[in-house]
Amino acid sequence: MPELRQDPTTKQWVVIATERAKRPEDYSKNLDKVELPHYSENCPFCPGNEAMTPPEELAYRCEGTEPDTEGWWVRVIPNKFAALVPNGGLGRMHESGFFRSMEGVGKHEVVIESPLHNATVGTMDLRQIEEILLIYRDRFNELSQDPRFQFVTIFRNHGKLAGTSLHHPHSQLIATPIVPLHIRHRLEEAMRYYDDHGECVFCRMLDEELNVQKRVVLETEKFLAFVPFASSTPFETWIMPKEHAATYGNISIDDAKKLAEVLSRIMKKLHSGLNDPDYNYMIYTAPFKDANGNWYHWFIRIAPRLNMIAGFELGSRVFINTTPPEVAAEFLRQEI
Amino acid sequence: MPELRQDPTTKQWVVIATERAKRPEDYSKNLDKVELPHYSENCPFCPGNEAMTPPEELAYRCEGTEPDTEGWWVRVIPNKFAALVPNGGLGRMHESGFFRSMEGVGKHEVVIESPLHNATVGTMDLRQIEEILLIYRDRFNELSQDPRFQFVTIFRNHGKLAGTSLHHPHSQLIATPIVPLHIRHRLEEAMRYYDDHGECVFCRMLDEELNVQKRVVLETEKFLAFVPFASSTPFETWIMPKEHAATYGNISIDDAKKLAEVLSRIMKKLHSGLNDPDYNYMIYTAPFKDANGNWYHWFIRIAPRLNMIAGFELGSRVFINTTPPEVAAEFLRQEI
Repeated sequence: MPELRQDPTTKQWVVIATERAKRPEDYSKNLDKVELPHYSENCPFCPGNEAMTPPEELAYRCEGTEPDTEGWWVRVIPNKFAALVPNGGLGRMHESGFFRSMEGVGKHEVVIESPLHNATVGTMDLRQIEEILLIYRDRFNELSQDPRFQFVTIFRNHGKLAGTSLHHPHSQLIATPIVPLHIRHRLEEAMRYYDDHGECVFCRMLDEELNVQKRVVLETEKFLAFVPFASSTPFETWIMPKEHAATYGNISIDDAKKLAEVLSRIMKKLHSGLNDPDYNYMIYTAPFKDANGNWYHWFIRIAPRLNMIAGFELGSRVFINTTPPEVAAEFLRQEI
Repeated sequence: MPELRQDPTTKQWVVIATERAKRPEDYSKNLDKVELPHYSENCPFCPGNEAMTPPEELAYRCEGTEPDTEGWWVRVIPNKFAALVPNGGLGRMHESGFFRSMEGVGKHEVVIESPLHNATVGTMDLRQIEEILLIYRDRFNELSQDPRFQFVTIFRNHGKLAGTSLHHPHSQLIATPIVPLHIRHRLEEAMRYYDDHGECVFCRMLDEELNVQKRVVLETEKFLAFVPFASSTPFETWIMPKEHAATYGNISIDDAKKLAEVLSRIMKKLHSGLNDPDYNYMIYTAPFKDANGNWYHWFIRIAPRLNMIAGFELGSRVFINTTPPEVAAEFLRQEI
């Protein structure tokens, strides 16, 4: 019998399907992947082509090398096709007194994750992943200084179904002058839980997952990786710091290293076990103003894109998950 | 400059992109569509193959023909791979006192829209669309009689990107024992607006759209089709009854005919103008208990799937719409 499960952090229901349940093997069919070269002449993100991008915001690069030249190992640039732009104000406009809008002010950046055209988080070495996680933090904190911005979404798209067109490995950050409604709802639920119980709902969730164990994928000193009880898509995995922390911006260098280890192992397993699936990962973090809250807790949500989002999901936002979280966790635990 | 726009009915923001703006011609590239036969021997939805499906719930069929035989023109069956099943109760279960779940009770039905394997709403004749809209209503009202159910999502998936695998034209209904959170948020916003203004926010929206005209696609005596001010995807189109009505279940036979006319014209235009794009449409309607509310208003949301949903959208639910609603509406208005 199928099950309706509720995400305790959002109160959102998901269907854990049984009639259409799939085993991990059913997904391992992504066979039209192309082998990429380590360098591509026309790729704007490849070393030597720095002039093809807007001037860099930040790069970790060899001493003595100039900005916008070779010598970097991670490089952040403004997105040339930015969804939001840095110049603009916060005033609201009102078309015919009813429809509200504002200038599309914000900042849209690209993190070029490696000089290698064919690298990806699922195969990169640990050191490189550490550097990516640190540059996320640096840009997040820099963007938080702009008083117009309230929130930063950090995300990675991998593969066509996940919305990427450029192969060269990259992530993105988008700073917005509003807190997305989706995040506000999450915060409200977390605050309500804190009101009722005097503890962070995510901290409680960590305790419970550690207690029941069956959805845990990997536990280290500082982080827990698990398939959440009410995960909305097959093999969705969350990585969460075990110690309470509302914002990603406060992660220490040492913890970023420890996070890299967990992220690397999970991504390697997804890459090999599910044959390099398309996926997105997103860092869910508190809005700047809630950075010190006792109720919210940052985490990375990894969402392989193995099923299409169809009309039921669009219309109700209730997802039908065809792989029970316990089955997914068991699979991911193996050989990790 | 890009614009951030807010949907007045949900308070959700969307980005109307300019840097990456696309014209309608940019999307007309869906050239790998296959020509389908009007009959397919192995298709469980084709006439003559009725035994391949579970027994029908309802069919509009020629007088004197037996259930589960040929002679129908629209036929409703339980989904063989149902996400939710009819037997089960409403009790909540609590894994380790924290994680809440319930039996996956509900009803998942398939509306086989035509005996013709290769028909689709974008090319069907008017009469057939009327019958589909009426059978939606009949099943909606029947499902509303089950005291365990609170809501029905009616939706259609067209094409692989929209989540369908079976070609034979069909829609689906899913009755759920819960009101999806997404719908509850919509209701709450609508109630708040009603509190403040003493009118339905959707009725007001209709007035405003008629007033500014630039996003109107088609107006008839009873219905308005328009591209909403804050549409989240290119060419998203809403069809809304001009007279206040919270639930689809109360639509009259006469109004269903008039709706069919509008739906047909919009779908034809999408089919020809955007080269048969993959799409979903969903009927947004009030939960059963709010069927007579003054604040909510049913509508059909048509969402062509021209862009992929990427990490930013998954993480923030803020969509980046690459075609301004006014441009989309102008395109759809032509030749309609």
